[in-house]
Amino acid sequence: MEAITRPSFIIREVVCRNNIRRMAEKAESAGVLFRPHFKTHQSLSVGRWFRDQGVNAITVSSADMAMQFAYDGWDNITIAFPVNLREIEKYRHLASGIDLNLIVDSEAAAAFLGRELSSETGIFIEVDCGYPRSGVPAGDYETFETIAALIEKSKNLNFKGFITHAGNTYRAGSAEEVAGIYEGTLRQMNGLKSQFTRAGNVPMVSIGDTPACSIVEDLSGADEIRPGNFVYYDLMQYYLGACSYDDIAVTLACPVSGIYPSRSEIMVYGGAVHLSKEHLCREHKIFGEVVRYGDDGWTTPLSGTYVSSLSQEHGLIKTHEDVLGDVRHGDLLGILPVHSCLTANLMKDHTLLI
Amino acid sequence: MEAITRPSFIIREVVCRNNIRRMAEKAESAGVLFRPHFKTHQSLSVGRWFRDQGVNAITVSSADMAMQFAYDGWDNITIAFPVNLREIEKYRHLASGIDLNLIVDSEAAAAFLGRELSSETGIFIEVDCGYPRSGVPAGDYETFETIAALIEKSKNLNFKGFITHAGNTYRAGSAEEVAGIYEGTLRQMNGLKSQFTRAGNVPMVSIGDTPACSIVEDLSGADEIRPGNFVYYDLMQYYLGACSYDDIAVTLACPVSGIYPSRSEIMVYGGAVHLSKEHLCREHKIFGEVVRYGDDGWTTPLSGTYVSSLSQEHGLIKTHEDVLGDVRHGDLLGILPVHSCLTANLMKDHTLLI
Repeated sequence: MEAITRPSFIIREVVCRNNIRRMAEKAESAGVLFRPHFKTHQSLSVGRWFRDQGVNAITVSSADMAMQFAYDGWDNITIAFPVNLREIEKYRHLASGIDLNLIVDSEAAAAFLGRELSSETGIFIEVDCGYPRSGVPAGDYETFETIAALIEKSKNLNFKGFITHAGNTYRAGSAEEVAGIYEGTLRQMNGLKSQFTRAGNVPMVSIGDTPACSIVEDLSGADEIRPGNFVYYDLMQYYLGACSYDDIAVTLACPVSGIYPSRSEIMVYGGAVHLSKEHLCREHKIFGEVVRYGDDGWTTPLSGTYVSSLSQEHGLIKTHEDVLGDVRHGDLLGILPVHSCLTANLMKDHTLLI
Repeated sequence: MEAITRPSFIIREVVCRNNIRRMAEKAESAGVLFRPHFKTHQSLSVGRWFRDQGVNAITVSSADMAMQFAYDGWDNITIAFPVNLREIEKYRHLASGIDLNLIVDSEAAAAFLGRELSSETGIFIEVDCGYPRSGVPAGDYETFETIAALIEKSKNLNFKGFITHAGNTYRAGSAEEVAGIYEGTLRQMNGLKSQFTRAGNVPMVSIGDTPACSIVEDLSGADEIRPGNFVYYDLMQYYLGACSYDDIAVTLACPVSGIYPSRSEIMVYGGAVHLSKEHLCREHKIFGEVVRYGDDGWTTPLSGTYVSSLSQEHGLIKTHEDVLGDVRHGDLLGILPVHSCLTANLMKDHTLLI
């Protein structure tokens, strides 16, 4: 840590590998395919830890990310973002070399892919089960029928099943509410599965956000899960009840650049361009919690101490006398991020493993 | 625009150059040094447009950014972030090659620089004039005296003056309030200047956020201004009254990837990893406004249409029938960012000039 001069993203490998192992074992015991989402880490090294755990199918959120991992030997990839017609060349290139799955939620996209793709490509239809971001509303059977017919009549499109992201779990107030959203989502998805099961073709149900996959004990109701964030976890997951502090595998190491006893604040070099502006609204806005580094990783968060605001490069920490008396200019403080996906994306080039 | 396949940051050079020219002329007519902040664009190309306008002194927010611009020939740079003791090697390297100014707000930092620097370096003392992020509170003369004495007794530190960032203008409710904050800040800064004026050494007053520098007509009360955001402007500045829509020089071009007439929404490929999670709280949360591209740049924002939420790669746009009837999968929509500094930082590698 002595060599760190600027904000640096620190990954604890042992914690991260444990998170991967636990989720892989949970999927295995439920008999579901584990297709982890790699958008959280976007890292070839961390990807290899998944391979060590026997994972060979992954999810990404963009064609560029699919290319990045395909070049590192991953050959079974779902791009879990509705097809972007402007990236057809990348899809063609990927489909010619790996097992590629794309997702559609419109006739326009399904018809376009049917015309434009020239290698066999798996297609999932995205379902909106109550988190209206993308997807066909779960009750709109007519649209599902139309899209499924377009896929079936196309030479290169292979209908794989139904996919959903129940992002509404992120707004849940308790672990019970997360479990309830998962059950409701699964019921709708399995309803579609029954409806579209044909002789010789049983569509898959692909599901799985980190809160639900962490909290729900038995995941056997689905065919495939795609959690991503669990690889690192973060404060958002902690406050949802999806992990403990000890499961959070990442911190942002920030040099102390200002100490202000009169207002009980510390300023660190570490701002919105490192952590992102994601925050929690609890008693006050929280942009991160604060730990100290030791020989064995880092401590649990310092009580009564949190990142209260961020500008481009400045992070302002509210704290109290005990901490103020123990911090010097140039010390490193660790920040547990609110949303590790966004922090990891910002810090791609400045990551250290411990 | 036909070649764009993924979210791309589009800079209108003519608008950007006009913004630079207007601010340079305003500084010149006020007789103040124009030291623009380059943290907004972080771009060597855009930096050269400033050079074309006669600018030769700049501000940055990190040692790394100072190195980047020093390598492109900029030889008079202020790092407007309280000294980070861990980056002393970078400061030494910079100070040996260019006119470098650092800022301090503590005895600890001033004493450290006095011991550790071996080339002449300009030092500003940072002042907190009512925006408590970093800086010595404007009324704390005792601390100013102590720091100034440490600087003066050091062989290599050259006391340049007082610097402040009145970030509280960003919370102002009107242009009048911005002007009022500027006047109050200037009064405190010029009070310090009088107090610390010695025979042979008149400290400078360095000031200047974009809202104040855009709104206040006569900037002659300061010695130096350091606005940054004005190079691009954005929605935040628009709603503060600091610019018109026509002055906003940047948009994020996003492919349309989902159209949902039943909920009057459009989904674009363009999310928090492109725009940042910065938002405005008006009648509802706004993460961006929406324009269409044409031969001559882009339109003014579409009425009743705005980015209502962002996840990692998805942007959700609330709109109405007129727009829905006129948009197709694969079209490009332009998003005016809420905070162009954070969007530019995220999009560094994917910028196009028009």
